[in-house]
Amino acid sequence: MAFEHEIRVTWGDCDPARIVYTARLPWFALDAINAWWEHHLGNGWYQLELDQGIGTPFVNMSMNFRQPVTPRHRLRCRVWPNRLGKSSVGFRVEGWQNEVLCFDGDFVCVFVESMAFKKITPPERIAGILQQHLKENP
Amino acid sequence: MAFEHEIRVTWGDCDPARIVYTARLPWFALDAINAWWEHHLGNGWYQLELDQGIGTPFVNMSMNFRQPVTPRHRLRCRVWPNRLGKSSVGFRVEGWQNEVLCFDGDFVCVFVESMAFKKITPPERIAGILQQHLKENP
Amino acid sequence: MAFEHEIRVTWGDCDPARIVYTARLPWFALDAINAWWEHHLGNGWYQLELDQGIGTPFVNMSMNFRQPVTPRHRLRCRVWPNRLGKSSVGFRVEGWQNEVLCFDGDFVCVFVESMAFKKITPPERIAGILQQHLKENP
Amino acid sequence: MAFEHEIRVTWGDCDPARIVYTARLPWFALDAINAWWEHHLGNGWYQLELDQGIGTPFVNMSMNFRQPVTPRHRLRCRVWPNRLGKSSVGFRVEGWQNEVLCFDGDFVCVFVESMAFKKITPPERIAGILQQHLKENP
Repeated sequence: MAFEHEIRVTWGDCDPARIVYTARLPWFALDAINAWWEHHLGNGWYQLELDQGIGTPFVNMSMNFRQPVTPRHRLRCRVWPNRLGKSSVGFRVEGWQNEVLCFDGDFVCVFVESMAFKKITPPERIAGILQQHLKENP
Repeated sequence: MAFEHEIRVTWGDCDPARIVYTARLPWFALDAINAWWEHHLGNGWYQLELDQGIGTPFVNMSMNFRQPVTPRHRLRCRVWPNRLGKSSVGFRVEGWQNEVLCFDGDFVCVFVESMAFKKITPPERIAGILQQHLKENP
Repeated sequence: MAFEHEIRVTWGDCDPARIVYTARLPWFALDAINAWWEHHLGNGWYQLELDQGIGTPFVNMSMNFRQPVTPRHRLRCRVWPNRLGKSSVGFRVEGWQNEVLCFDGDFVCVFVESMAFKKITPPERIAGILQQHLKENP
Repeated sequence: MAFEHEIRVTWGDCDPARIVYTARLPWFALDAINAWWEHHLGNGWYQLELDQGIGTPFVNMSMNFRQPVTPRHRLRCRVWPNRLGKSSVGFRVEGWQNEVLCFDGDFVCVFVESMAFKKITPPERIAGILQQHLKENP
């Protein structure tokens, strides 16, 4: 079962069409990926960057918007790593509301040494956690 | 020459890595697409929705993040329609800073009648403007 | 005991000074007020506006920023109504992290009939709930 | 005549009431203050922090929301310093649309040495620029 991150969709997330503004959805997806790290590693991007000197900048994202998201239900984001390279990791994120798939997306990050912004292979502990939860797209 | 929309990147757009937070970049790209409409049609999404009852919800987006964006330079977003379907339109957006391509992306929208959220073919005037500026990706 | 709304402070909320960007804090405070409504009324601003035709636009806010907010702890926002007028309501919001008061603020809203944006007295049920939780600032 | 910073209000700034979401307005006001620095000092908060090691965190803000802001007009923010202390500075911001005052606010910042987050007196050049544009509220 994939990790699930719950988001309380709210008034300020919506646009005049009375649904969540499209540009909020990648934001939610990234929040969900960060929550994945926090849950599995014990820390999110903030501690990874400031305390361990490791960054994971995104190199690409691709999303499908299938159904409008609204504040009428909590948004449940399912997240898992779906690709592991030597110095990169891919994440799948699916956003569900009320049992309906509202959006899905693929996101690719690279590992960098923060100060130098130079590509690195991830520390063993991190690679291990990713390996353990790796699940390719069906 | 493609339409160019200038964005003043600022402090609040940046994250602790001291570059623009990834989730702001799709937001910037959407702002640029909205500015394209405003420039070519005379009105943006707000007037299109409220005064004309037409919406253009996104169905997918795909972006590459090539170089960090910072507040040290203005961000110049080049935008053009690159695909025109019966009831859909694709846009290309490129974000440039200081002559460097920082990100690019493809975005697809459908035309809907706002109240019913039902797919429509765009009004002739709009289709004409899109047709006139259509430029496929190289 | 005041109602408490928990916020998961995250990477994208922070600025290059590595603390939450000041402009996010009023946003958090408003999220907390909306959560107060959701908890006590059963619905937040979205349902109030769309289903009941009632809006509560803000007329002023005043905030003190006492300590930086970071992603290292959850942010606990305490919220209560602290002033009830004929067609207005005041809310107090306090933001706490790790037992430290990070910000506090006072916010005043008026009740309006949404379509006309015309001031009204709140429905009895709403006035009753506010009255019941009213607690003036010490 | 006060410095004026123009903001292109857009679709994504609006909420389901079809006016700019209240929490965007302090954000706009801060953007305008940052633009004031950029215009008068040559650099904004980003360069001040990263290149000069000086921060100007906010200690309080107080705003009145007088009229709704919408994407139908550009938002013109007038900004000036209205109070200068030994290690603090106050700014006044007024947001105008179509010759109508939509909001106004007072904001107080302190000068800090960035790394230590320790209060300092501002460098002479900065104090001089502030002194020169100082205009108390009427």
